[in-house]
Amino acid sequence: MTDTLIDRRDLAFQLYEVLDTESLSERERFSEHSRDTFDAVIETADKIARDKFATHNSAADKDEPKFVDGQVEMLPQVKEAFDAYADAGFIAGRYDYELGGMQLPESVMAACNGFFTAANPGTAGYPFLTTAAANLIRVFGNDQQKSTFLPHMLSGRFTGTMALTEPHAGSSLADIRTSATPTDDGHYLIKGAKIYISGGEQSLTENIVHMVLAKVKGAPAGVKGISLFIVPKFIVDEEGNATERNGVNLAGLIHKLGYRGTTSTALSFGDDAPCHGYLVGEPHQGLKYMFQMMNEARVGVGFGAAVIGYRGYMHSLEYAKDRLQGRKPSEKNPEAPQVPIIEHADVRRMLLAQKATVKVAWRCAYTAHA
Amino acid sequence: MTDTLIDRRDLAFQLYEVLDTESLSERERFSEHSRDTFDAVIETADKIARDKFATHNSAADKDEPKFVDGQVEMLPQVKEAFDAYADAGFIAGRYDYELGGMQLPESVMAACNGFFTAANPGTAGYPFLTTAAANLIRVFGNDQQKSTFLPHMLSGRFTGTMALTEPHAGSSLADIRTSATPTDDGHYLIKGAKIYISGGEQSLTENIVHMVLAKVKGAPAGVKGISLFIVPKFIVDEEGNATERNGVNLAGLIHKLGYRGTTSTALSFGDDAPCHGYLVGEPHQGLKYMFQMMNEARVGVGFGAAVIGYRGYMHSLEYAKDRLQGRKPSEKNPEAPQVPIIEHADVRRMLLAQKATVKVAWRCAYTAHA
Repeated sequence: MTDTLIDRRDLAFQLYEVLDTESLSERERFSEHSRDTFDAVIETADKIARDKFATHNSAADKDEPKFVDGQVEMLPQVKEAFDAYADAGFIAGRYDYELGGMQLPESVMAACNGFFTAANPGTAGYPFLTTAAANLIRVFGNDQQKSTFLPHMLSGRFTGTMALTEPHAGSSLADIRTSATPTDDGHYLIKGAKIYISGGEQSLTENIVHMVLAKVKGAPAGVKGISLFIVPKFIVDEEGNATERNGVNLAGLIHKLGYRGTTSTALSFGDDAPCHGYLVGEPHQGLKYMFQMMNEARVGVGFGAAVIGYRGYMHSLEYAKDRLQGRKPSEKNPEAPQVPIIEHADVRRMLLAQKATVKVAWRCAYTAHA
Repeated sequence: MTDTLIDRRDLAFQLYEVLDTESLSERERFSEHSRDTFDAVIETADKIARDKFATHNSAADKDEPKFVDGQVEMLPQVKEAFDAYADAGFIAGRYDYELGGMQLPESVMAACNGFFTAANPGTAGYPFLTTAAANLIRVFGNDQQKSTFLPHMLSGRFTGTMALTEPHAGSSLADIRTSATPTDDGHYLIKGAKIYISGGEQSLTENIVHMVLAKVKGAPAGVKGISLFIVPKFIVDEEGNATERNGVNLAGLIHKLGYRGTTSTALSFGDDAPCHGYLVGEPHQGLKYMFQMMNEARVGVGFGAAVIGYRGYMHSLEYAKDRLQGRKPSEKNPEAPQVPIIEHADVRRMLLAQKATVKVAWRCAYTAHA
């Protein structure tokens, strides 16, 4: 199997010849960047993806996270990979310098993230969700929420999730029942249950920041009554230090067919202990806010599919060059040596079909980020 | 999940209204049959499939056969199911009364086998391969081969396999290297290796009859030099009693994505002990003979896919009637009860697409047997 995650020449063609990413450095926001700095971060992404992510892709698929005494047990390599990603600054890659970011363009971040998904989509899920949850707080949170949570999410000290779905409602968010009851000091008590929450529990970081949809008591029925709350696993002070365990608990893990390294969780809120939540923005506007994260996740999942397909093509191509079988129709001697299967017209046709499909998908995905 | 494997009204429509299977009873060969006897065997198949096959479908998928000390360990329910199938006479269903068969038409046997595949494709593989291997001996074997092996295969005392593929050659059968060296008493010594041999080892029956492609020393190169041999796991006397272990051994099991209950094996021939093989028909004509079994397997795999798809549709249909989610567009009250998802136009569209696809596939498959 080839070690190449994404062919660098293919990527350079997309970024610099199709998308003209280099010209972004003429813009004020990216003025400290150049093709050299873009290539340097891409090189770092490629290296970390190969050294820390690809190395446990198969192991994490075979040995999925386990539910043990209300906690998640997972392979230690997942934490090593997550920390390497965070330490290299990728969670904050798009962010302002003052927030510890690199002010990189979306298209370059997409190029970097492609290596991680190609290497190990399950492990890549944790930092990707964290970036998207941080983006939600950055855009819609108040100053205190931003200063309390953003630095620790961007540094990889906390992860983030999106907690929408409930067992009885599926994708019909109008029917969620998780409730938020106001307290005297301005925050809310959350009570309810969520399922299919990716990364809802893990053994990677000291805290998890759940972005939770719930209904304030007395809210309008349907989607017009949904609000968005920050619900941390541990209540933190302004420096991000844990003060007490919040009442959000892992009720179970859900077995999946793909992305098995990313936990899919059932969570309970306020069952055994009070669960504190902090309203983001205005009440009843939560679904509108959450669509930012949903759309980021949608683009991410589509991009992930394109990159996984691309990596499949890399494997096919190498195998077709290596595997000997049969002879060309023009060869009449049945004792002639067998040829690599890439020499057969129908194998070439299949490879070209595969290449065309993944490159179109890939281009759409990069363009969505450009 | 629905217990219905195949809707009996759907099946009756295919058999009696589309294919006019009932009129087959006017033919000499099927003159003792009628729609009543066809329906009685179908009823038996449905019952055994539900009681003995469906019951361990999920367990056999999760707990695939294991390679332990050169043997295969598998769930005991697989043997119970195989024995129930054989005891009800299904292996010999198409065969002459004098061979213990029921002289049933292909279309009725296909209808019966559909229940077993729908219930448990992995376990169904063993009897299906046995029938196809027996058909090969029946058509191309000599009288001694027929009397030695056929009764025990048709009764379910022995199973059968098709042993074609070799590691270096894949589907390029022209390049197989397994050799057959003639002995003084008219049989051959087989030496070589095969992979992907379905049912090549199991813990179901006292003997296994491998139908093996090999090249007699000095044969023409390519496909014109392939011969077909019967290679039993145990050498048997004319009553089918084991006299000695033959030199064909399990080298390993191959992990599969589907049909996991059917072992996929690597076999070695003549490695540690002499491996005796018996030529079927003329030398160098083996590939031509084997195409009968290959085509029977192809039709069987295609039919299996159609039936598995049909069963998937049965599950979808039941789920869509049961699962409540969302409301119809005409319902303006967000607090109105949720409706079963089959009431949503797009869910109906998807169910109809699924139904149309599986019914076309199913009809093609039954027609291939008619």
